[in-house]
Amino acid sequence: MERFLALDIGGTKIAVGRFLRNGKLEDKKIFPTKAERGYKKILDEIVENIKRLKTNDTVALGIGCGGPLDSKEGVILSPPNLPGWDNVPLKKDLESALNIPVFLDNDANTACLGEYYFGAGKGVRNLVYITVSTGIGGGIIIDGKILHGQRDSAGEVGHQTIIPDGPLCNCGNKGCLEALASGTAIAKRAKEAILKGEDTILREWSKEGNISAELVRRAYLQGDKISEKIWKDALEYLGIGVGNIITIISPERVILGGGIMKAGEEVLETVRRVVRERVKLVPIDKVEIVLSKLGEEVGLYGALALALTEMEAR
Amino acid sequence: MERFLALDIGGTKIAVGRFLRNGKLEDKKIFPTKAERGYKKILDEIVENIKRLKTNDTVALGIGCGGPLDSKEGVILSPPNLPGWDNVPLKKDLESALNIPVFLDNDANTACLGEYYFGAGKGVRNLVYITVSTGIGGGIIIDGKILHGQRDSAGEVGHQTIIPDGPLCNCGNKGCLEALASGTAIAKRAKEAILKGEDTILREWSKEGNISAELVRRAYLQGDKISEKIWKDALEYLGIGVGNIITIISPERVILGGGIMKAGEEVLETVRRVVRERVKLVPIDKVEIVLSKLGEEVGLYGALALALTEMEAR
Repeated sequence: MERFLALDIGGTKIAVGRFLRNGKLEDKKIFPTKAERGYKKILDEIVENIKRLKTNDTVALGIGCGGPLDSKEGVILSPPNLPGWDNVPLKKDLESALNIPVFLDNDANTACLGEYYFGAGKGVRNLVYITVSTGIGGGIIIDGKILHGQRDSAGEVGHQTIIPDGPLCNCGNKGCLEALASGTAIAKRAKEAILKGEDTILREWSKEGNISAELVRRAYLQGDKISEKIWKDALEYLGIGVGNIITIISPERVILGGGIMKAGEEVLETVRRVVRERVKLVPIDKVEIVLSKLGEEVGLYGALALALTEMEAR
Repeated sequence: MERFLALDIGGTKIAVGRFLRNGKLEDKKIFPTKAERGYKKILDEIVENIKRLKTNDTVALGIGCGGPLDSKEGVILSPPNLPGWDNVPLKKDLESALNIPVFLDNDANTACLGEYYFGAGKGVRNLVYITVSTGIGGGIIIDGKILHGQRDSAGEVGHQTIIPDGPLCNCGNKGCLEALASGTAIAKRAKEAILKGEDTILREWSKEGNISAELVRRAYLQGDKISEKIWKDALEYLGIGVGNIITIISPERVILGGGIMKAGEEVLETVRRVVRERVKLVPIDKVEIVLSKLGEEVGLYGALALALTEMEAR
């Protein structure tokens, strides 16, 4: 029986798993990244854990990692959440340590593949996966294949301009979807409201800890008007961004994942309404907008899906 | 020697041409659509002209026509510029009249294919063609194939939202790229400025005839400040729209065509500058932004490219 390994590298934790070809998880291990250790030490711990999981019939390893990276060469190019990972040849390093083929792609792309193989993307050939959490990222599958674009940069759906003179985004542009609708953007709007002296329960709550998007939503659900406006504006912008993607690509399905999706149905309803209001040239009854099915497991399943796809393509 | 026929159906004129496989145009005929005649009479004139051009070694006919349409079935679905063309089976009608295979796609897609085979799209596999004239449309080629999307609606790049509460678009949405940067939008802004009593030479000119985008540009080049702002704002929005497409798809090349491209280099320069300012996650030095090479010939060459592609795929 052929087995596959999957590796999901995040800025706070790293997960490795061993799967059967059909997606059955046999064993997994999660450990903290402790990113400040730098590449070499983290690589050692990854190898150690993978060797423990690896069987003689393991045929390949798939990896999802935050970009920028070069998926073809298997090189990581200085992602913001992994200090010191500058041009590190992760694929080559793991191939020589493990003696099996290793495949790498950015985590939004692997997440998209994961949903396509094992989750909410089954049964269609053209889909977009959007993750909304601290940032907004995405992956696009056209005709069953990940769209990579120039240096693996396709699918950066969070950095479309929605308001030309809108708030500054981390990327340097103004009015990006990410600067309007991500968890970070929601928390930032809330902090600005507190600073401006607006009448909100968040002022009290902020004394006990950091303001998060989740806290803003909780305040809104308790009747806080300022929080309601911040939350609902963000979802409205998300709907506009999703609408633009549908207008350009006209996919069969759009899958929404990431932390903000804990507010599942409310987010879906708003996004679907805004898309109905704004997208007039695509038959939107043919475009399903659904929630991620893999949730927090999307990282490992995505890395597995990458390994499966690449081995099939050989 | 195999020959191919191409048919370009527009709201004001219709062109038919006979080509060699290598793209050499042997003969063509252009006649006015006179759209008010309705489908049957126009079809008769099309058939008559094609029969005159058709040789014994003609293997297929490709057609580009304004959408909406169903490219697979070859049916035209009530395009706004062809009254009475409601669910007309153009492919079937022409196949029975001509006894050769007939292929249909919307004119933005065929234009994209035309540039890909014979014009500014040669040598790449992922490209976007954008036409800016009275409206803004587009076609997308991924991995050498037209992206059709749901019911041939992909590539409607003119209907992405750029300003959520912007001017109403013909499509029903607010703040679409088309409502901000098309020739129609530019002319509309100018007429509004005249109505508002703003200080512009266009007031004088409007007494002699209708205000067009070209007239606005001429006024700007003569030093008219109001016209300058209208014109430059439109190009800025076009740059934002092109930037969003690049951010999402990360193509190798973006080709700009349509009437507004008569202002060629100025448009290119602005679009490139705005893209450099706003697109931060795609390596934009890898994305070429160029002008259409086929110009007004793109209709016929696009229809030819469709026939060539479809016959190859058989």
